[in-house]
Amino acid sequence: MYRDRVRMSSLLDKVMTADQAAALIKDGMTVGMSGFTRAGEAKAVPKALAQRAKQEPLRISLMTGASLGNDLDKQLTEAGVLARRMPFQVDSTLRKAINAGEVMFIDQHLSETVEQLRNHQLKLPDIAVIEAVAITEEGHIVPTTSVGNSASFAIFAKQVIVEINVAHNTNLEGLHDIYIPTYRPTRTPIPLTKVDDRIGSTAIPIPAEKIVAIVVNDQPDSPSTVLPPDDETQGIANHLIDFFKREVDAGRMSNSLGPLQAGIGSIANAVMCGLIDSPFENLTMYSEVLQDSTFDLIDAGKLRFASGSSITLSTRRNADVFGNLERYKDKLVLRPQEISNHPEVVRRLGIIGINTALEFDIYGNVNSTHVGGTKMMNGIGGSGDFARNAHLAIFVTKSIAKGGNISSVVPMVSHVDHTEHDVDILVTEIGLADLRGLAPRERARAIIDNCVHPSYRDALNSYFDAACKRGGHTPHILREALEWHINLEERGHMLAAS
Amino acid sequence: MYRDRVRMSSLLDKVMTADQAAALIKDGMTVGMSGFTRAGEAKAVPKALAQRAKQEPLRISLMTGASLGNDLDKQLTEAGVLARRMPFQVDSTLRKAINAGEVMFIDQHLSETVEQLRNHQLKLPDIAVIEAVAITEEGHIVPTTSVGNSASFAIFAKQVIVEINVAHNTNLEGLHDIYIPTYRPTRTPIPLTKVDDRIGSTAIPIPAEKIVAIVVNDQPDSPSTVLPPDDETQGIANHLIDFFKREVDAGRMSNSLGPLQAGIGSIANAVMCGLIDSPFENLTMYSEVLQDSTFDLIDAGKLRFASGSSITLSTRRNADVFGNLERYKDKLVLRPQEISNHPEVVRRLGIIGINTALEFDIYGNVNSTHVGGTKMMNGIGGSGDFARNAHLAIFVTKSIAKGGNISSVVPMVSHVDHTEHDVDILVTEIGLADLRGLAPRERARAIIDNCVHPSYRDALNSYFDAACKRGGHTPHILREALEWHINLEERGHMLAAS
Repeated sequence: MYRDRVRMSSLLDKVMTADQAAALIKDGMTVGMSGFTRAGEAKAVPKALAQRAKQEPLRISLMTGASLGNDLDKQLTEAGVLARRMPFQVDSTLRKAINAGEVMFIDQHLSETVEQLRNHQLKLPDIAVIEAVAITEEGHIVPTTSVGNSASFAIFAKQVIVEINVAHNTNLEGLHDIYIPTYRPTRTPIPLTKVDDRIGSTAIPIPAEKIVAIVVNDQPDSPSTVLPPDDETQGIANHLIDFFKREVDAGRMSNSLGPLQAGIGSIANAVMCGLIDSPFENLTMYSEVLQDSTFDLIDAGKLRFASGSSITLSTRRNADVFGNLERYKDKLVLRPQEISNHPEVVRRLGIIGINTALEFDIYGNVNSTHVGGTKMMNGIGGSGDFARNAHLAIFVTKSIAKGGNISSVVPMVSHVDHTEHDVDILVTEIGLADLRGLAPRERARAIIDNCVHPSYRDALNSYFDAACKRGGHTPHILREALEWHINLEERGHMLAAS
Repeated sequence: MYRDRVRMSSLLDKVMTADQAAALIKDGMTVGMSGFTRAGEAKAVPKALAQRAKQEPLRISLMTGASLGNDLDKQLTEAGVLARRMPFQVDSTLRKAINAGEVMFIDQHLSETVEQLRNHQLKLPDIAVIEAVAITEEGHIVPTTSVGNSASFAIFAKQVIVEINVAHNTNLEGLHDIYIPTYRPTRTPIPLTKVDDRIGSTAIPIPAEKIVAIVVNDQPDSPSTVLPPDDETQGIANHLIDFFKREVDAGRMSNSLGPLQAGIGSIANAVMCGLIDSPFENLTMYSEVLQDSTFDLIDAGKLRFASGSSITLSTRRNADVFGNLERYKDKLVLRPQEISNHPEVVRRLGIIGINTALEFDIYGNVNSTHVGGTKMMNGIGGSGDFARNAHLAIFVTKSIAKGGNISSVVPMVSHVDHTEHDVDILVTEIGLADLRGLAPRERARAIIDNCVHPSYRDALNSYFDAACKRGGHTPHILREALEWHINLEERGHMLAAS
């Protein structure tokens, strides 16, 4: 069955077991693997690596597109394989190791990793491990459910291991659009001016002789863990849709809005689902990950085209979408994450970026990554790629967490991923703050009045009033600015009296 | 004399006094004025406005390119004319009013103001006031020593006042390259692929009937206040040049480096001066402001071409450069700040961005704007436009300030303008920290070992060691993180014991 998928027949003698292929990865190597938002990761070789590390010392620097599925980061962490990891992860075991200082994690804007590789500012991968549905007659690699950084990893690495995954339908071929920016100083503009432009090839073009191993596997992607909308996420979606209506009424957007980007996760997914019953038509997406909501919107006749870097679906949606891919294929494209997230394209297209905040402060600075200013959750991902250059940089979160012990709106965030300069709109289930054109004191008023949970509003008003009395463009009382986080850490509630 | 400069003769009947022109500006209006880094600002009309405000209520929202010279922001502030001000300023009187909450200041990435206007996310200027050396036969405006936001302001405003400044030599004509991105959703790539590309027109194209007043004045630009290099700035320059040499040796840059961007001010100017005696050749600049050092480098045969948005020179340099402009003209271009700072172009060209930090922390987060987390200095300016997408994002500062009462390297910055994700290289006179590809704990080690003044090194090591014991990807002790700033505020020294 896999033999039909290796269409350059001279490569068939490279087929070997995962253990044999994994043996090509040596202690101390830098390895680039496919995988983005738990979609399309190489599965057999990393598993074999984790096994091997039980017998012999094996520490590598691992770079991927984004997060891996199938508990691979967990297995690699437990086996002690990961010395360094970039640019994103979502695994709870790896997270613990990162926060313990055992794995050096480099948290990057997702569009930047391969740019830094291209310029030799990061060590190039010695070897790349790429999941594929097929290898073409020319020896080019056809990716599966994600492109991520796979193309550049395969181009930069001296050796490439291909995992042919027969669990993926071969009809994925044709979905991908592989475009790699040319080298500086003679780089030309990225010739993409519409979300549905195709500017590259459908397979990753590398010299066939770089393919040193082919491993066959049949392990499917992990299903998405996105939760269905609840009252709060529905509330957030409603506020945002009302805002979009006002923007359309004011003539600032057309009724098809701008190309939509939605971060991964339940809140952003709920917001996108909310568009199904909205008055907007002919929507488009220019995003990283295409989730259930993308296909719900296509089915509802609302979404005309979706560009992403990966497809990550729930169990419910998975068989239906991939079993009927022909229904969607002319409405989809998967691009390298450098292109799906590229600042040049994001600014040109005028994207509406919707991403999740861990917390934000009264001036609109957003923390996307660090609990209590210290503990990494997942990473900044693509949120910065989009927010900086978006037509609208929107951040969403529930107003409280942990049963009300935590307010998502605080006097000063404990870590900044997106500065006040880059944040246009903040939304919680309480309401929406439009920060465009406002000075910090005005931003604080808008945020406190619109986004804060009632149980925290008085306290934030007190802080803000007292800070204003002391003056400053961005009034703060430094002695109290992080007190809410300290209270939480020491007493379990942000407003616990000391 | 001015009559030759108004080459569309039908416009000559629009010539009037500054008071008459200023009367077109009504209370409550939004006004867009030329001016960028104290170069090419309209001078007569704002002065007349400040006078008029002594007689009658007059409050406006003022947007410019960047900072104004000739004490105009001071005069407008003292007269109470400024209700709102964006996107940048450097005036001490205005700064006080901003920090007192009397003027609402919107601190923006300099590439973004006109983008937000174009999309009607900011209120369009009712009227624009643009300094010019001439008006062409078609009624187009030839700017003076800056382009800044002038072109878009003139295009967006219903009415335009032109100040013909006869103190500027008419040979400035031809220096400018006015390109305005097309509207979304059909925007095309910015067709600029080399620093010396010319992609627009030499004058600002507006319908002549929008010119409602022409005012003649002869007030020169204010001279630059940049200080000559001192031991510390020379030390910073030396560290950076040594680093560039290592980058060239490692094959990561050619001997002409990449296009250089240098922020305004004495440190960046000193760094650029340091290149005169360096081994690098055929240098280019793609920057905002061209300072003395630009012309020193051209004279030294080191700099092949400089692209900027303004020219701001010291008294020493001013007469020489503008008196001999033909010597430089084929090596210079002035662009709208949207283009000089555009993320698309910055990423494409691979710019080396050198900007000044107010302070940075052990993890590489940079504060460019807020003293003690509250008081605005000037604004973020273009530093974010460049740092985010630069080939190298470099921030420079002296390691201590106020006679050693302040360390420029702190446990946690009191305000974040550039996050750890966007900062590659930090330099003080003590040394240089190369943060590329490092995890936070590694960044801290590199910064403390290389950039910190010896009088603060032990204290930072103690903080970092204690924080690491508590764990976290980015270890912090929240209760102590801002203690240095609190000490400074309350006791005048960052390490003063409580």
